[in-house]
Formats: sequence, C-alpha cells, structure tokens
Amino acid sequence: MNVPLVRSDVESNARPGRPRVAILGGGFGGVYAAMRLEQLRRRRDEFDITLVNSENYFVFQPMLPEVISGSIGILDTVSPLRRLLPRTQLLIREIESIDLKNRSVMLSQGFRPRPYVLKYDHLVLALGTVTDFRTMPGLHEHALPFKNLADAVQLRNHLIHVLEEAAIETDTELKRQLLTFVIAGGGFSGVEVAAELNDFVRRVAREIPGIDRSEIHVVLLHSGAMILDRELTKKLSAYANKILQRRGVEIRLHSRLRTATPDSAVLESGERIMTKTLISTVPSLPNPIIESLPLPKEKGKVRTSEYLSVVDTDGIWAIGDCALVINPSGEGFAPPTAQHAIRQANIAANNIVATLRSHKKESYGFEGLGKMGSLGYRSAVAELFGGIKLSGLFAWILWRSIYWWKLPGLDRKLKVGLAWALDLLIPPELVQLKLASSQGISQSHFEPGEPVFRQGDLGDSLYIILNGEADVVREENGTERILARLRGGQFFGEMALMNQKTRNATVRCATAMDVLVLRKGDFRALVSNLPDFRASFENVVKARTEHAPLSEKSREI
Amino acid sequence: MNVPLVRSDVESNARPGRPRVAILGGGFGGVYAAMRLEQLRRRRDEFDITLVNSENYFVFQPMLPEVISGSIGILDTVSPLRRLLPRTQLLIREIESIDLKNRSVMLSQGFRPRPYVLKYDHLVLALGTVTDFRTMPGLHEHALPFKNLADAVQLRNHLIHVLEEAAIETDTELKRQLLTFVIAGGGFSGVEVAAELNDFVRRVAREIPGIDRSEIHVVLLHSGAMILDRELTKKLSAYANKILQRRGVEIRLHSRLRTATPDSAVLESGERIMTKTLISTVPSLPNPIIESLPLPKEKGKVRTSEYLSVVDTDGIWAIGDCALVINPSGEGFAPPTAQHAIRQANIAANNIVATLRSHKKESYGFEGLGKMGSLGYRSAVAELFGGIKLSGLFAWILWRSIYWWKLPGLDRKLKVGLAWALDLLIPPELVQLKLASSQGISQSHFEPGEPVFRQGDLGDSLYIILNGEADVVREENGTERILARLRGGQFFGEMALMNQKTRNATVRCATAMDVLVLRKGDFRALVSNLPDFRASFENVVKARTEHAPLSEKSREI
Repeated sequence: MNVPLVRSDVESNARPGRPRVAILGGGFGGVYAAMRLEQLRRRRDEFDITLVNSENYFVFQPMLPEVISGSIGILDTVSPLRRLLPRTQLLIREIESIDLKNRSVMLSQGFRPRPYVLKYDHLVLALGTVTDFRTMPGLHEHALPFKNLADAVQLRNHLIHVLEEAAIETDTELKRQLLTFVIAGGGFSGVEVAAELNDFVRRVAREIPGIDRSEIHVVLLHSGAMILDRELTKKLSAYANKILQRRGVEIRLHSRLRTATPDSAVLESGERIMTKTLISTVPSLPNPIIESLPLPKEKGKVRTSEYLSVVDTDGIWAIGDCALVINPSGEGFAPPTAQHAIRQANIAANNIVATLRSHKKESYGFEGLGKMGSLGYRSAVAELFGGIKLSGLFAWILWRSIYWWKLPGLDRKLKVGLAWALDLLIPPELVQLKLASSQGISQSHFEPGEPVFRQGDLGDSLYIILNGEADVVREENGTERILARLRGGQFFGEMALMNQKTRNATVRCATAMDVLVLRKGDFRALVSNLPDFRASFENVVKARTEHAPLSEKSREI
Repeated sequence: MNVPLVRSDVESNARPGRPRVAILGGGFGGVYAAMRLEQLRRRRDEFDITLVNSENYFVFQPMLPEVISGSIGILDTVSPLRRLLPRTQLLIREIESIDLKNRSVMLSQGFRPRPYVLKYDHLVLALGTVTDFRTMPGLHEHALPFKNLADAVQLRNHLIHVLEEAAIETDTELKRQLLTFVIAGGGFSGVEVAAELNDFVRRVAREIPGIDRSEIHVVLLHSGAMILDRELTKKLSAYANKILQRRGVEIRLHSRLRTATPDSAVLESGERIMTKTLISTVPSLPNPIIESLPLPKEKGKVRTSEYLSVVDTDGIWAIGDCALVINPSGEGFAPPTAQHAIRQANIAANNIVATLRSHKKESYGFEGLGKMGSLGYRSAVAELFGGIKLSGLFAWILWRSIYWWKLPGLDRKLKVGLAWALDLLIPPELVQLKLASSQGISQSHFEPGEPVFRQGDLGDSLYIILNGEADVVREENGTERILARLRGGQFFGEMALMNQKTRNATVRCATAMDVLVLRKGDFRALVSNLPDFRASFENVVKARTEHAPLSEKSREI
C-alpha cells in the first residue's frame, strides 16, 4: 500500500474576505448568541458564524435534574445544536488554546491527528464555569458532579446499581451505606438534585422486595443557616426546607464537605457519613481556558463593558457565567442565570452586527424576572419580578409551564410534554444504561484508619502510593499483627493479581493517602508485554517473599 | 476508626427446605421461563425462582436495530427485569463459574469484593450465544458488535461522530473513509442493521451542510450468493436484495471479512475497504460458560432430551440459542429464534414444576410460525406458516404489529407506540450520548504497509509491539529514509508523549502487527509514579537519542 507520509499541517477555516464570528461554548449564552446572529444576518455572505462546543447538543439545564427521576426521557432535556443552528458552522471539538494576538483558536484533533485552527474577527466567550473538584482532596475521585447530560445519566445508572446491590446485600452495615445518598450544596442545583433523587429512590424502592423505604437516607449538606438562603427570601427558603424534610430528606445545615473516600463523605467537623453515593454541585470554578487568557478579570470572570465587549480589547465579547457584567443600576453584577445569559447573548450579537455595519451599539439593561426552583414531585418555590412569592403546587405548575415554553424547538416541546403525560401513567424507568466497561488508570483517596482492602477480599487492582502511609495488617486467630508500613512510591496488591488469590492481609491507611489504581486487565497487559515492567514487579515480589520474617506467604498482599 | 479486618467469606442464598430454581440468562429463554414459573407457582414457599443476568433489563432483540435510526427511543426496546418478574429474585452479576457437582453457581463480586454463591436444585441454562471476535484478527479491536443495548447506543454515537467530523473534513480521502459504512453478515441481523443504518445516515446527512448524500457508501458483505439466502426463499431474498440496493446499500456477495484495522475492513480476496465504521454481526459463538461445562454438546450447544432437560443429567435444563433441541419431526434442530426460545422456556418451566410435583413431563413439539425481517423504512419480508409469503409495506405493517403485540409490558407498548407516532412527525434524534471518556489500555491491529501514525501527527499514545514488525520512516525534502526496524516487545511513540511534540517520523508496518496502546494520561500517571517504569523508558529514550546515526532528534518518534 502506498500512503503519503506527511499530511497537510493543520486544518483551518481560513477563507478570504468575509468577517468571521466565532462563538466558544454551547450553553445558553453561546447558543442564543448564534441564534440571534443567524436572525440578524441579511445575506449568507455578510459574515460567517462558527460555534465550538465539546458536545453536539445544547443542554437545557433547568430540566436536567428531571432526568434522574426519569420523569422525562434521557435525551428530552437536550437539543441537537445542528437543528437549533442550521446556518452556523459547528465544530464539535475541545478547545486547546486561544491566541488573542493572532486572532485564532486552536481546537483538538478529530479522526486526523492534526490540530484545527479557527480564525476569527469577532470572538464570543461563552464558556460558563466548570465543576472542578481539584481544590478538594478525594472529591475528584469519589464524588459525582452534576453539570451535563453524561453526569445525569451516570448518576441514574449509579442509583439503580446501588439499589440492585442493596436488595441482595446481607451485611447490614454495607446495606445502610448503599442506601445512604449525600448531596453537597444547598443552592438551587443541589436542592433540585436532592429532591429528584429522593423521589426516584423512594419510588423505585417500592418495587424492590429487599429494600424497606425506611432504610433510605438522603442527606443534603449546606454550609449556610438555611437551604436556598442566598437565593430566596427567608419565608420561601423555610418553605423549601419544610417540603424536603417532609419527603424524607435529611438537611444538615452549617455543614461543609471536607473530603471524600470510596466509602464515605467526610465533613469539616470530622464527622463521617458512610455512603457509596456522594454528589457535589459545588464548587463552580472558572473554565481553565478563561483562566489562561490575558484579559481583565475579577473573581475569575472576564470584565466587560456595558456593551458586553471585553474591557480594553477589540472584537472580543464575553457573556453568561464566564463574564462579569455590571448591573445597569450600577450596583453589583448580573447573576449567573439562564435569563441573564440569554439577554446578554442577544445584546452581544446585536453589538457585533452593529460593529460590522458601523452602527451604534446598545448597552445591557436587564434586571431579571425572578427566581424559581423545583422541589420535586409537584412542588416548587418562585420569587417573581415585583416581589410576588409563590410556593407549592401552583409554583410547580408555573415552573413547568415557563420552562416548557422556553424549551427550544417544537420536537422537544412535544417529547417533554408526552413524557410528562406518560409519567402520570407509568412507573419510572429502571433500566441501567451501562456503556463503559473499563476506566483505565484511576486515582483513589483514603482517610486515616480506612482500609484499602481487607484480608480475604478478591484482588482486582494494584495500588501505587502517591502520598501518605499505610499498614499491612494480618489477622490470625483473632489477633492483629502489623507486617509492614508502606510509603509513597511503593506499590501493593500485586500478589493477589499475579497469583489469582484473595488478599491475605488488610491494608489500612495510617495517614490520609492517595493511590493510583491499576486494574487487573491493564496490569496483566503491561506485565506480560513490557519485560522491564515485569522485572521490576518480580524483584519486589521476590524481596517481599524472601525477607519475610514470618511464614513464606505472610508478606503476600 | 475501628473496622473489622475480616468479613464473612462468601455471600450465599442458602436457605433450608424449599426447592430452588436458578435461571442463568435474561434473554427470551430465561425471562419467559421465569415468567412461566411465576405463573405456575401455587404458594410463595412452593419453590424459589432466581434469575442471573449481567444487565438489569431484558432486550427485545427484534427491535434493537430501530434504536440506530432513532425511530424508537434508546430505552424503549428494553424492559426492566424487575418489572417483568416481580416474584423472582434477581441477581445482576456476571457468572464466574458453575459447579455441577455441588449444584452451585459462583457469581462475580458486587460492592463487596466477595464472590456470591448461588445454590440450586434445578438449573436452567439460557445463556444464548456471544458475538465473539477472538477468532478473527483485528475484529475485536476495530469492529463494532451488534448484540445488546450498549452496542446499539455506541453505534449510534459513533455514526453521529463520523458524520460531524465528515462535515468539517477537508481531506477528501479521509472524508470518503468517514462516510463509508461496512456491515459484515447478510443474515437477518446484518440486513436489519444495514437497512436502519442506511436510513439513519441518509436522513441525517440532509441536515448537515458539509455532506452530500452521494458521498455516503453503505456496504453489506455477505459470504453467500444472495442475502438472506439461508433464511428465506429465493424470491423473497431477491426482493430484499432489490429494496436495499434501491435505497443505496451496496451489496457485496461472495465476500468474507478477513481482518480489520483502525482504517479499513480487509476482505478475504485481499481487497481493502477504507472505513472508520465496521459492524460485524458474525460470528455467533457459544457462551464461554457453556463451553466450560462438562455436558454433552454438539456444535458448542448443549444437547437436550425431548423434555428439554440436558441429556444424562438430573435437574439441568437448557433452552434457547445455547441448547440443541431436536425438532419434533425428528429432522434437524430447532432454529435459534425468539419464537422457539419462548416455547422452550414454557415447556422447560412446565417440566420443572412437573418434576417438583412428581407429575408427568411434556415433550417439545413446536414447528415454528414463520420468519420475518425488517428492511428499514416501510418495507419488510415475511414467510409465514403454511407457505404464505409477503413483502413490502404490508409485510412491514405485519412486522410492526406482531412485534408490538409481543413487547412485554404495557409501558413499553405505550412508549414504542408513541415513539413510532412521533417518528412520523419529527426528524431523527441527533444527540450523541458520550458517557465514557477514557478506555484504559487497548489493543490495535495493523496490516502490512499501514501506518500506525505519520510524521507531523499529534502524539497521544505509546505503542508496545505484541507481534509483527514495523519500520520507522522519515521524510526529508521529499525522500523517504528508513531509520529503524522495530520488533515484538519493543515500544515506540514515547518521545512525543514525554516532550509534547508532534511525531517526527512515520511508523509503518512491515508485517501484520498487533500493538498495545497506552494513552497519554495513563502513560503519564505511570511514568511519574513508578520509578522503575520511568527509568526503563528513560534508558531507551537515551539510547535512541545517543546511538542515532543522524541528527540528534532523528530517532525521536
């Protein structure tokens, strides 16, 4: 076969003449900006519109928690970008970097391992925020985020999985742990997730013979004195509190998550809640791409002028949660909500077109219409424009009506409408949609005193200590004996993998410990194909066996 | 924290007194056997019913291909087992092994790393077959199977992904490759997949500006002289052939797949079809658990008596595709279809209860009602009991009616009915549901002359040669120079990973080659945490740099 060795260096959208508007991000800000630009464009060749997003769909965030309870279908809360934006060029790629000087954006590779360079004349930053657990130990490894569609589907699958396992579990401690669900964050997002999760697990538990509903614990952690205290008035916040508690959600106020392990959520007070399900809706951090840009920022957000262009730049615009837009009244900043992002998107699009046509720009002047949050099954709270406050069934009907109306596209309106109707007739969806079988190499975090594995367990992973220390403990005839102390850079767990045995000692953390986890399949593949890798393991195994002061097998972990 | 070191050894369902029926497999055979047993049971304590399956749902196989085109929703074709079988104990686990002597089944671990031992008095084997690519090189790595729900969803996502990439691809060769779809196997399964895939990509391409529908190639490979030639009469088979061709499916007869690479499907004739999408519905092999059992077998299937008990055993029954059931007429065997599996399930369940109650057993006497296959958009073929043959729209209406009627559960009937109605109104679903981000360590197969990567590509993986040889080739000023020959056990690609550079040479296979692929993230994690691992790479890198006969960088791959 004759193949060319070298292919063209980069792909690019370089095209002469026509102005190019590039929008980064496919949330409310990005999508509505593109929609508005499509409306404003007079001729096909007036300017190009390009939108970059890592997914090919737009997530209608307010309805995402409903995916958990299955009251709407998995795909009903998202809309394909292509259908929303028929006249926009879509690039479904990751953003690698932005070169402001050369007015270009570098995108990740596709099937061809070449970067894609997107040139622009106007750049709209609409990258939102990210749920980033890097600042808290253990969260990245053991907490579930709740931000996008994949998170929602993964959470649903996980919930079904723990319920199925709880149904056949005979160890009461493990069963309690499986049936304890912890949600961190008492803002709108955390409250909605807690409400929908609580509805779902309680509805499903009715159908599972081995689970008593009284065994279910849903715990909502909030750092403030009242849930939704930053979002709502005292009265409504108290109402939300009451409704959730009546439905069985245990609310822990003045509680903050400190860390997480495979078996527990650890609070700042030192209290430890044993659970296999920890969801964190905090913290929201700036997108790393925004962080990397040399633009004027405050609290990690890009500062904009009243016209929504970025201060001290030309042709760069910022909208939505990644932008810091001063309120028209001059006090404070526009809050990070969908209604503001949509209005900002429209103004930014208008001003880009005004700039291209040398017209006058307009300033941002939206004050917000109010706030709403769902509390799950037929209950919600709302605080509307002009001070009107609503709660309960009426607020819930209003919540559904407004968001249904705002759903983009007739097809979604139809699907969601039908799903809501069906939800009244048929019980929730129980199917666990497992797609990924392996996870590659992962990390795990443990707290002092916690076992990584126990004597007698089946061995399915090798562990490499990144930091911290652990004891190898053996129980014989009811007495414990510490066989060794393991430290950073050492590994353990390889004996059970190489010889297909069960663990014959427990490894228990002496300090907080982070480990790299290499699963059986991956470990075997490396051991059997990399001679050096195998040799280094064999040496350690030999040493551990030879220098063991006890019986021959005693140091095998 | 105080944790017990050793936990109880195994979990088990051991319970005294009551007879226990264990069913392995949640396909048509297993589910219908459990349903029948639930019906027959007179009192709760007459006998226990347990069903083991790796998923918590039952897949209604005949409708699975419709998930590709999105004419039904992702979850509409599956039913939660718990809802179908409310009085059966469900164990959602993998089967590790069966101990016939001790009448027990060992299941995989759950959240607790202990095996689960399932004791039985009667065992129903309903494990079906598996699509197993182990016998064909490259297929396991580069072909997509089409057997369960995860396969269907993954195929849909993959199709949307290649279409999105094709829309912005400027390299015409790569674009053609992205828009070529190859399906191997001209039986019912392959034909239905080809038909639905063809409908889907052509419908979607209408909405994507960068793709012309004439650029789409859907190729169906079949080893026989006519598709469906084993399943249908000549006339109907010719009809199916004609319909598919008219809709743009290219049918290659007398063609057999030999191997697959990341870039192509290679036929036995040596012909190579460049594609990024290869689906294989063949070969169907016995389930490895069945293979491991010391039972009388023929063609890998378990031989049963007329009562569906396994020949020469007591209390072991086999039904569905894993069983070899002699036709009541005495000629040949019952074919592996749903209608036979369901009837066998009923007879086996009747006979188990008859055995428990010491009644008379009945023999299997079902001859089949006919055969049907969908050809996609409003067309089908059917050959019914008594020699009636149907094709076209009427056969399609019959196909939909019969299968809709057979869908288990009112909720599915409602959902599928609505989905079909909506499909007439709204365009197909375009959302790509990505759940898995990483894949761990994988394998890849290449054919002679094929490049693993090319000079100038971004480097995102390290490769370890399992077998075969490859040349490191460099192009400078238009001339090619071979820098080195790599062999089994050696690795390459590490330079680009360690220094974040693009590949500065091409690696091209000299022979057929299998490699282990270690992705950037996993490689980095190992290199930075395992001193021995890092050292062995550094040595090779040093040697490759020092002994390079060319410029300092020339051996960096």
